[in-house]
Amino acid sequence: MIQLNTDNFNMSTDDHMLPNDADIFDSLNQRLSLIFSNYIKNGQESKDFVLEYLKPEQLIDLISPEPPLQGKGEQGIIADIQNILKYSPNTWNPGFMHKLYSSTSAIGVVGELVATIINGNSHVYVASPVASVIEVLLSKKLGALFGYNESICGGLTCPGGSASNNMALLVARNTYFPYAAEHGFALSYSEKIKFNFKQPVAFTSNQCHYSIEKSMMMLGLGKKNLEYVNCNINGAMDTIDLENRIKNAILQGKRPFFVNATAGTTVLGQFDPILKLSQICQKYDIWLHVDASLGGSLIFSKSETTLNLLNGTAKSNSITFNSHKLLGVPLQCSYLLFRDGLDNVRAQVSSNANYLFHDDQDDINNSLAFSPNDQQTLSNNNFNSSNKKSLLLNQYSAESWDIGNATIGCGRKPDSIKMWLSWRYFGTNGFASRVDNSLNSSSSFATLIKSSPNFILFREPISNLVCFYHIPISQRNDPDLNPILNLTSSHDNSFLNFPDVLATYTKSITALLNKQGKLLVDFASINLFDHDGSLVRIPEFFRIPFNSPFFNIDHLQFIIDQIEIASATIYP
Amino acid sequence: MIQLNTDNFNMSTDDHMLPNDADIFDSLNQRLSLIFSNYIKNGQESKDFVLEYLKPEQLIDLISPEPPLQGKGEQGIIADIQNILKYSPNTWNPGFMHKLYSSTSAIGVVGELVATIINGNSHVYVASPVASVIEVLLSKKLGALFGYNESICGGLTCPGGSASNNMALLVARNTYFPYAAEHGFALSYSEKIKFNFKQPVAFTSNQCHYSIEKSMMMLGLGKKNLEYVNCNINGAMDTIDLENRIKNAILQGKRPFFVNATAGTTVLGQFDPILKLSQICQKYDIWLHVDASLGGSLIFSKSETTLNLLNGTAKSNSITFNSHKLLGVPLQCSYLLFRDGLDNVRAQVSSNANYLFHDDQDDINNSLAFSPNDQQTLSNNNFNSSNKKSLLLNQYSAESWDIGNATIGCGRKPDSIKMWLSWRYFGTNGFASRVDNSLNSSSSFATLIKSSPNFILFREPISNLVCFYHIPISQRNDPDLNPILNLTSSHDNSFLNFPDVLATYTKSITALLNKQGKLLVDFASINLFDHDGSLVRIPEFFRIPFNSPFFNIDHLQFIIDQIEIASATIYP
Repeated sequence: MIQLNTDNFNMSTDDHMLPNDADIFDSLNQRLSLIFSNYIKNGQESKDFVLEYLKPEQLIDLISPEPPLQGKGEQGIIADIQNILKYSPNTWNPGFMHKLYSSTSAIGVVGELVATIINGNSHVYVASPVASVIEVLLSKKLGALFGYNESICGGLTCPGGSASNNMALLVARNTYFPYAAEHGFALSYSEKIKFNFKQPVAFTSNQCHYSIEKSMMMLGLGKKNLEYVNCNINGAMDTIDLENRIKNAILQGKRPFFVNATAGTTVLGQFDPILKLSQICQKYDIWLHVDASLGGSLIFSKSETTLNLLNGTAKSNSITFNSHKLLGVPLQCSYLLFRDGLDNVRAQVSSNANYLFHDDQDDINNSLAFSPNDQQTLSNNNFNSSNKKSLLLNQYSAESWDIGNATIGCGRKPDSIKMWLSWRYFGTNGFASRVDNSLNSSSSFATLIKSSPNFILFREPISNLVCFYHIPISQRNDPDLNPILNLTSSHDNSFLNFPDVLATYTKSITALLNKQGKLLVDFASINLFDHDGSLVRIPEFFRIPFNSPFFNIDHLQFIIDQIEIASATIYP
Repeated sequence: MIQLNTDNFNMSTDDHMLPNDADIFDSLNQRLSLIFSNYIKNGQESKDFVLEYLKPEQLIDLISPEPPLQGKGEQGIIADIQNILKYSPNTWNPGFMHKLYSSTSAIGVVGELVATIINGNSHVYVASPVASVIEVLLSKKLGALFGYNESICGGLTCPGGSASNNMALLVARNTYFPYAAEHGFALSYSEKIKFNFKQPVAFTSNQCHYSIEKSMMMLGLGKKNLEYVNCNINGAMDTIDLENRIKNAILQGKRPFFVNATAGTTVLGQFDPILKLSQICQKYDIWLHVDASLGGSLIFSKSETTLNLLNGTAKSNSITFNSHKLLGVPLQCSYLLFRDGLDNVRAQVSSNANYLFHDDQDDINNSLAFSPNDQQTLSNNNFNSSNKKSLLLNQYSAESWDIGNATIGCGRKPDSIKMWLSWRYFGTNGFASRVDNSLNSSSSFATLIKSSPNFILFREPISNLVCFYHIPISQRNDPDLNPILNLTSSHDNSFLNFPDVLATYTKSITALLNKQGKLLVDFASINLFDHDGSLVRIPEFFRIPFNSPFFNIDHLQFIIDQIEIASATIYP
């Protein structure tokens, strides 16, 4: 007879540890659903502030930093949730223009909710069959949009665009330097000879995202072995400079292996010339990665001009694409797509973790031999294998469905569920509208800037970012401003001589706007090359992204007005 | 006059692109809340299958792989959601014992919902003030639980335990090899002299998680420079072997810099002797990392014996702790804690991304000078700065609140919101009950196994994992089984002579159980050292984690019964 002390299983109800989560969920849902829906509504209608800014010391007061010994139960966390909502930026408000994302959509919220309710984990098929299938198929569909061959390409989600870029560099590194996984790069003299060692060198433009440099640092390649290629005056990579640098590196006995093309730079929203870069990369046998974290969404646009910005992606080896930016899928949902599929990715990064990646699928299928009749009763799904599907399935080996072994991690969020439900709800046409409306908003706003006397458009917008300066009326007599006072609103891109005092205006106005909280905006400075090839630091300008799909002319005018008002307050 | 074509802003309502997400959220919530709550209820009451297993080709039929041109709207995605729920494992069912996590709680679901509704991004303070403050404070509280000095320690969340381990290794690498970030490891002869290069070597036990090896690979250190330390027969690291290996490495001119202690191995749930390891690490100036992904939750236990397993964490340099495992916070919520705070982390990994990390806070504070009276109207919060709080705040420099610059990423999910709300709801006592109930379940189940004639307990459970074999009655005459038929239920740990045929039983029964879907279990094999120091491969056994806090004696008996029934079906 088994002797178990069943008292062990009696828990205090004070600890809220009974299996009644359905009731708690219902109760919380009832109490919170109106709070949530009002939050969304007041955000989208700009009734609430974008942000009621509190300083850290004020927030520490609010959130009671000491975790309680006894649980606070429902009432306790509802108060916490209200504080979180109240003192975080309301991203549903179109005035949230601080970062390169906006709110998600109701569908995005529900998608994350579903992923959380199943507590999905798409590392092995058996733990997340549906999410795994969605991720494999969706990556292929996305690859096809970018011009890859759908039957060959593949992809997966990573926890953010930086992680995707990092993973792309890792796969390229291990592909070009096959000894690296086992031996690393700290080679002895004899190992260098044996492996025919050449110094790995990577290239990116000086406008790229900082994750490229961090990835070089992380992967043991060293920041100094990332060469920053000059940009043209428009902020796109100078292909002549790139090729010269590649040739030089080869002359020095180095091995150029990776070029990062930025499709949508963080400040100007500029696109490197991907097609030209692919030709150079092909010529020198270099991995071409496209960091389309920001600009990848433009692949949904119906405008030919816009699509041309991404021309050449089909020839790249890999693409990073963040659906959590312009498409409004909840943070995080970043795709890393590979032209040649995931087989090489697995070969480069997989590890022999047989406690996890034993082939469940085969084991389960094999088990059918033991009780063949069970299959009918278990699945009522009328599955008829057609030739078309067989073709599709032949593209995958059994292990293709365990996505985790193509990553450097273990458990992973099934982010594709959110993207999938969004795509199903909005359709390709809905994504197109969303993207094109953002682009319309930014170009309309640029037009508005040009027609407003106290504003100077820095550049015509390329994607959904608008960069501009404001000059307070009371400051127009400042002699420092002379060089730009007569600048026409559609000045030549080659004009880079912006006085530093503009940065002061930008920063002080931004700070006041953000403190007031009706509009949350950000600024940036960049370094550009002038026609002589000298690097010029451009003082801080307003950099406003148009991420929300819901802008109208009133919103655009509101931005202008708010800047004018803040300007008059600070510079009366 | 501004000339804008406002038609640009008219979008087709067919594209579901109007700012009415509150209505859509309400409508979806109304249609889904009962579906969700029934799903939770039927799971927890084991009314639904854990998994209705479909093969990939069957799922492809269900999910319509071609994304639609026109959106499917609400009705479309509700059908999708029902498929996701139906054909994913129901982790709320206590019979989901396949992986090292179970369902989340209702509070976890709501926590993720809040994080998604704000579309929170805790990379810079201004984008997520509340989440940033919570993350900074909570990491300190967790560090204090593990014995760190709360006023000094710090931490942050990473996207999973592997990412946390990876980051710990990166910070250690850059700390011990300060040239690595800039130069990488592919050094020339003269650089090696200049930097006084010594080959970096890291150590971990052969029972560790595979992410340690993957991290060595990823960081350019090379898998071969990870030395696998022998374990004692109990599966914990052999400290004598470790010290010998360290000495040997030093004799060879190498630089041992990192020891990974596993606190809760993936198969046996064993703990390396952290305190002893810390003494060795101190002696040789080595970074001690504790991978407590699995076992870190035990810090909440009220049992002295259990807490002793984690003895020594206070002396470690860093700790990985996954609250998404035993504590039921939704995937993902992994903490990486640093004894000495985040300053060194920032120094080792931060990058100069001034488009993102300009000091908003100072800018905002400075702007108060322009309109000092605004402060009253903006914030109705009665903030009185006290001495106590000033002391707390003095621990942080302004940049401490921008967490992103202490990571290798950019945008990041504010995972701490989920952990915070869970802790607030359940309290420290609730977490203690949860953990101790899991431990009680596993020890009770081990007792049950020992009293069941057709089962052999492989080892007494150390944490919440139980490893055991089953012998089908009809197979007892197999001569291969002779060595173990008379094995007492509490056999000596030194017995390692398990016949291979046991693996066949384990795998076939597991496969049938998983196909039937009332119970989802997994198996594992490991390599252990016998007393002679020879490595013995232990054939696959059942490895069942007790993650759910809701087990009762019926659940435990159900597992035994299901295995017996499957066994009788396969081996009649």
